[in-house]
Amino acid sequence: MNFTQRLIQITQRQNSLLCVGLDPDLSRIPEKIKSDPDPLFKFCSEIIAGTKSAAAAFKLNFAFFEAEGSKGWNALEKLIAIIPNDLIKIADAKRGDIGSSSEKYARAILERLGFDAVTVNPLLGKDAVEPFLRWPEKGAFILCLTSNPGARDFQYFSDGKQPLYKKIIEHVHIWNQAKNCGLVVGATQVRDLQEIRSAAPALPFLIPGIGAQGGDFEAAVLHGTDDAGELALITASRSIIYKSSGSDFAEAAQREAEALRDNINQIRAAKKANLDNSPQRSQRLQRI
Amino acid sequence: MNFTQRLIQITQRQNSLLCVGLDPDLSRIPEKIKSDPDPLFKFCSEIIAGTKSAAAAFKLNFAFFEAEGSKGWNALEKLIAIIPNDLIKIADAKRGDIGSSSEKYARAILERLGFDAVTVNPLLGKDAVEPFLRWPEKGAFILCLTSNPGARDFQYFSDGKQPLYKKIIEHVHIWNQAKNCGLVVGATQVRDLQEIRSAAPALPFLIPGIGAQGGDFEAAVLHGTDDAGELALITASRSIIYKSSGSDFAEAAQREAEALRDNINQIRAAKKANLDNSPQRSQRLQRI
Repeated sequence: MNFTQRLIQITQRQNSLLCVGLDPDLSRIPEKIKSDPDPLFKFCSEIIAGTKSAAAAFKLNFAFFEAEGSKGWNALEKLIAIIPNDLIKIADAKRGDIGSSSEKYARAILERLGFDAVTVNPLLGKDAVEPFLRWPEKGAFILCLTSNPGARDFQYFSDGKQPLYKKIIEHVHIWNQAKNCGLVVGATQVRDLQEIRSAAPALPFLIPGIGAQGGDFEAAVLHGTDDAGELALITASRSIIYKSSGSDFAEAAQREAEALRDNINQIRAAKKANLDNSPQRSQRLQRI
Repeated sequence: MNFTQRLIQITQRQNSLLCVGLDPDLSRIPEKIKSDPDPLFKFCSEIIAGTKSAAAAFKLNFAFFEAEGSKGWNALEKLIAIIPNDLIKIADAKRGDIGSSSEKYARAILERLGFDAVTVNPLLGKDAVEPFLRWPEKGAFILCLTSNPGARDFQYFSDGKQPLYKKIIEHVHIWNQAKNCGLVVGATQVRDLQEIRSAAPALPFLIPGIGAQGGDFEAAVLHGTDDAGELALITASRSIIYKSSGSDFAEAAQREAEALRDNINQIRAAKKANLDNSPQRSQRLQRI
């Protein structure tokens, strides 16, 4: 089974597109956890236990683990072992280097640590990305368009026909022989998101850092999913893991994760209902 | 003292532009080292002891340490402590993420581990890079043009006026307020290298993975340095650290590093002699 099929299977079985982002910051975790010998592991393990029934995936942000040095890497190694194997374990590491170094990064993350997927920076081109694609059942989410202010600096750089982020999509389609490529799409502009989904109708999207409320959230679900309301993971990090700063943080995270999953599913249901009544439906059915 | 001044001071005092690249691969290190409880540390520490008098900088390729998980990170932490403080310690980590994550990566590498410089991927723009620039005495070498086959995919993507790698140089000049930005320039084409040096006459270049012989090596020194034959670090990794696979590997590395340093200095001397006799000399003196 390739990564794309596996992602669809897991999101359907969990009835959830929610990806819980683990960005554990020692300065923000509850006081009683800080005194634990391994506070990053302790905090994240309780969040995982609380939210795993509502989530399709967990995304571990390497920056927050490396901030604690080899101890942080040790926490990563322990956490990967306690995330259920029937959920998707994503390394948000944004690696990318020339071939032989990317090869080492890929083995470190997908083989040694045992993640199911990894975020990859494509700036160095094909040989920077390919080592992450050697396992058909494991995925590489390739940076396409991000929502930070600096995205304007280079991602919209255009050759007159298309911006860089669309050039990236072109290449990802070529690299996607094993159906294990996805895109990181942080677009908050509805039009960008629509354009990217229309340029990549069959690629899984990892949509990071969406706030729990407001139009961005609805737009991400509506336009980030495919025609069937699938093929996207909607990430929420701080809105879940820091929902409460008290000793009830795991229960609060669970409630928030369940509410988000349900909100996402409502928007998907509305999208599907609209689509079933629209003239596009017959086209869609033909395509499937 | 800003990073650029510090780099000039160190390369002048060491009379060397050589950067020794540490890419320790368990499958390639001598048999007697493999049985050590911490083979990455043991191997690199002997290479450092052997080559430190010939080098201006050491570059630690994080991919090769992460390949060994938290043990590899632990080796990193121990190695940084034994590299002399009067040499430049470069983290070849190619990090780059949205602001708050880059902030964590920057603190992990430049503060907690204590590196003097780091390689940074600029694809996500200004807020991905800025957190690495908060310490004027520490440097960020920003990926500009690489020499791998995949460089063609995006780095040469052009808006009709200039390719992406030149757009990156434009932005780096704006970001370089504290004079602590440099460029990673892996160009093996003489014309590209000349153009990049002419577009960035005052930025330090980190030139990776040059083989010890042949035209590429001479071109890198000749066209990668500034008018005065300074402002570049010429990296050699495997040609030094795997020069011998026997128990004399550290001595062999030392001899190779000294030979490379001397070769580089001969090319610099020839460049300066040519320049002193050329009509450009008066222009250069005016600029200084």
